Amino acid sequence: MNEQNISENISAIPTEIAHRLESSPQDVRSELWDSLSAEEKGEVLPLLHEEIKESFLKRTTVDEITSITDHMQPSDVADVIDLVPAEVGQEIVDCLSEADKKLVEQSLEFADDVVGRWLKHDAITVSRNRTVAQVIKHIRSISLPVYTDKVLLIDSKRHYKGAVTLASILEASDNLLLSELPLVTDINVLNPNTSLTDLAAVFRIKHFISAPVVDSEGVLLGRITGDDAISVLQDEADRQFMNMAGLDEDSDLFAPVLISAKRRAVWLGLNLLTAFLASFVIGQFEAILEQVVALAVLMPIVASMGGVAGSQTLTIVIRGLALKNLHSGNTQSLLKKELGVASINGVIWALAVGVLASFWFSDPMLGVVIGTAILINLITAAYAGLFIPVLLDKLNIDPALSGSVVLTTVTDVVGFLSFLSMGAWLLT
Amino acid sequence: MNEQNISENISAIPTEIAHRLESSPQDVRSELWDSLSAEEKGEVLPLLHEEIKESFLKRTTVDEITSITDHMQPSDVADVIDLVPAEVGQEIVDCLSEADKKLVEQSLEFADDVVGRWLKHDAITVSRNRTVAQVIKHIRSISLPVYTDKVLLIDSKRHYKGAVTLASILEASDNLLLSELPLVTDINVLNPNTSLTDLAAVFRIKHFISAPVVDSEGVLLGRITGDDAISVLQDEADRQFMNMAGLDEDSDLFAPVLISAKRRAVWLGLNLLTAFLASFVIGQFEAILEQVVALAVLMPIVASMGGVAGSQTLTIVIRGLALKNLHSGNTQSLLKKELGVASINGVIWALAVGVLASFWFSDPMLGVVIGTAILINLITAAYAGLFIPVLLDKLNIDPALSGSVVLTTVTDVVGFLSFLSMGAWLLT
Repeated sequence: MNEQNISENISAIPTEIAHRLESSPQDVRSELWDSLSAEEKGEVLPLLHEEIKESFLKRTTVDEITSITDHMQPSDVADVIDLVPAEVGQEIVDCLSEADKKLVEQSLEFADDVVGRWLKHDAITVSRNRTVAQVIKHIRSISLPVYTDKVLLIDSKRHYKGAVTLASILEASDNLLLSELPLVTDINVLNPNTSLTDLAAVFRIKHFISAPVVDSEGVLLGRITGDDAISVLQDEADRQFMNMAGLDEDSDLFAPVLISAKRRAVWLGLNLLTAFLASFVIGQFEAILEQVVALAVLMPIVASMGGVAGSQTLTIVIRGLALKNLHSGNTQSLLKKELGVASINGVIWALAVGVLASFWFSDPMLGVVIGTAILINLITAAYAGLFIPVLLDKLNIDPALSGSVVLTTVTDVVGFLSFLSMGAWLLT
Repeated sequence: MNEQNISENISAIPTEIAHRLESSPQDVRSELWDSLSAEEKGEVLPLLHEEIKESFLKRTTVDEITSITDHMQPSDVADVIDLVPAEVGQEIVDCLSEADKKLVEQSLEFADDVVGRWLKHDAITVSRNRTVAQVIKHIRSISLPVYTDKVLLIDSKRHYKGAVTLASILEASDNLLLSELPLVTDINVLNPNTSLTDLAAVFRIKHFISAPVVDSEGVLLGRITGDDAISVLQDEADRQFMNMAGLDEDSDLFAPVLISAKRRAVWLGLNLLTAFLASFVIGQFEAILEQVVALAVLMPIVASMGGVAGSQTLTIVIRGLALKNLHSGNTQSLLKKELGVASINGVIWALAVGVLASFWFSDPMLGVVIGTAILINLITAAYAGLFIPVLLDKLNIDPALSGSVVLTTVTDVVGFLSFLSMGAWLLT
């Protein structure tokens, strides 16, 4: 068995087709998509990133969409309805069976960022009064859904009454009642209004195979499988990674040039504002820059050291917030640690840069100025790297998306300001 | 059910204890660790990040370590042996049962970044000649391991002969032979030498519940469960995110100050080199900077726009490489797209900054200079953002770790050089 075999093994399955679509430039992608059957399209479409999904839906006729949604889970149909114009959505609903219509409408009651939208209805549910033999017979009569590790117990009103593992059913003797089997104790019961971000956080701590979803009245609505939770977790990680560069997590590798250019222009414009702010600060020191040109030569070093040190603290804090490792109870301890790290590195690099600058420009006082500015900027960077993401998180703004812009603004401004103002004071 | 209930449900389980340990400052952490029983320690230790794991092992006596490893899976014992001094490792091995000793030694034959080290030995394996009734009886006699979705078929020499799903066994009639049941076709058979990075890539495309591990002679060695694969995937995502800021993925939120300071000093030092290189470039233009101080005021804008645009391309390419969406067959298409995006944004922002700078310093030629420099730097950034990570990846250097330093060096140097040299040429 080698790599070759592994990839052969996974070819032709929907996830592999989705991967191939996402790896293809626009023209190849359209060709590949057109070559799929309605059934394949129905299996593949829910696996694609939103952006690509939307572009395919735009170029598909209403008739074809309804034949594609025929092959989809209700939650995925709901997702398609969300992405198409209202009249197309109505047409899709009209083509559904009564049972599916109800499930799709139930999905649509929830926003697309909460558990309720994405739950599956394929859980094996049984009454507690059934015997082991009856349940095994029931399981044999249906097709056991993948990601089934437990059977969910309900009463006559579909109230959730706990779960027993498939393992304990298989191991028990035939005539026992399910109520006599041990209930699963470390189960993650989810609320349909739980956000996907919280789902990812729960799943990070406990990798469940499946989790029941129960509403506030105790009624079992469905389940979330590990499979779904992994996708959510991946999306969260992708989002965080892409957001750090101001990119949308759905950003398509081969998005049309105009769409990409427009999106990135916004980010560049935002960064331009902070760059102009930094330039404005520098502009206040034109007089001293004309006199001591060494300040102009060295000033990027001060800003850059602050930016790099700050982004390290920022990254650690953003990850700590995402993993729920960081909370109000331990922020103070982290501040102490980060200030300690910043002080040590501040002193080391202040001395190093100070000595180098002194020799380069044969001016010991210039070394003192740049060393002090670096120390000030590294300590500022530690405060900013810690408090900017914590504050943004409190304001419900994604720290991964806007943290680095705000941080760079602070370290640039403080870097230039401290270096040039001390220069103006001590070098004339 | 609300958030409260969810977190109560997961308290007291090992993953939750591990999470609490990782969220605690050093002193609280030590106290919590000391309060655990040997069994709890055995369950929790394998879940901790390497750095924390090592610090606990350092402060634990040999006797206690052997009582902790008593409660561990063979692969986790192998991991502990890797982290402790050789004589302690020997003592751990001596305390194992003969069967466990063999499994631990088998694990240790593999490096800790390949599948062979981490496989589990709890797969349900049966001969193809058994009947469905016999297998069900066998399953009932043992405790069904979690993450079991299939039964693996072997011959008398433990050669892997395919797999049948638990579902198809449950649905089949009692007297059928396993060889008469349909084999699973879309299975991911892993090689013990497959790297964890490749495992993550395979798992990303296909979220398997369990996958058999088979050596080059076709012998079944064990299995990897979805649970393990999720951890690997998470670690890969964490590593990528942390590496972008030059941090180790194991970086402990509450690592001791001295250890953190030392590690980050290396990264700051590396960045200082690139900052000095940029300063050296600026230093070549002292004469013109003294004459036209506006160049000093505006030069950070050129460098910063290039850096931001480049890091967007860099991020997209790093993600594309990690998801295996990008390969030699489509790099050319991506280059075309990125150059298109860079040209459009280059022209837009060249005009915007050019006009603003012209008015600010009442010098139209200055606007032409900065506009042209920005256009040049954005196009350079697109090339650099694409080819730096692709090249690093080919050289087996992690592009997430070193890509941004190299990129910033390029955009800083090209930014300052183009802006100042054109300034020297056109503004005197």
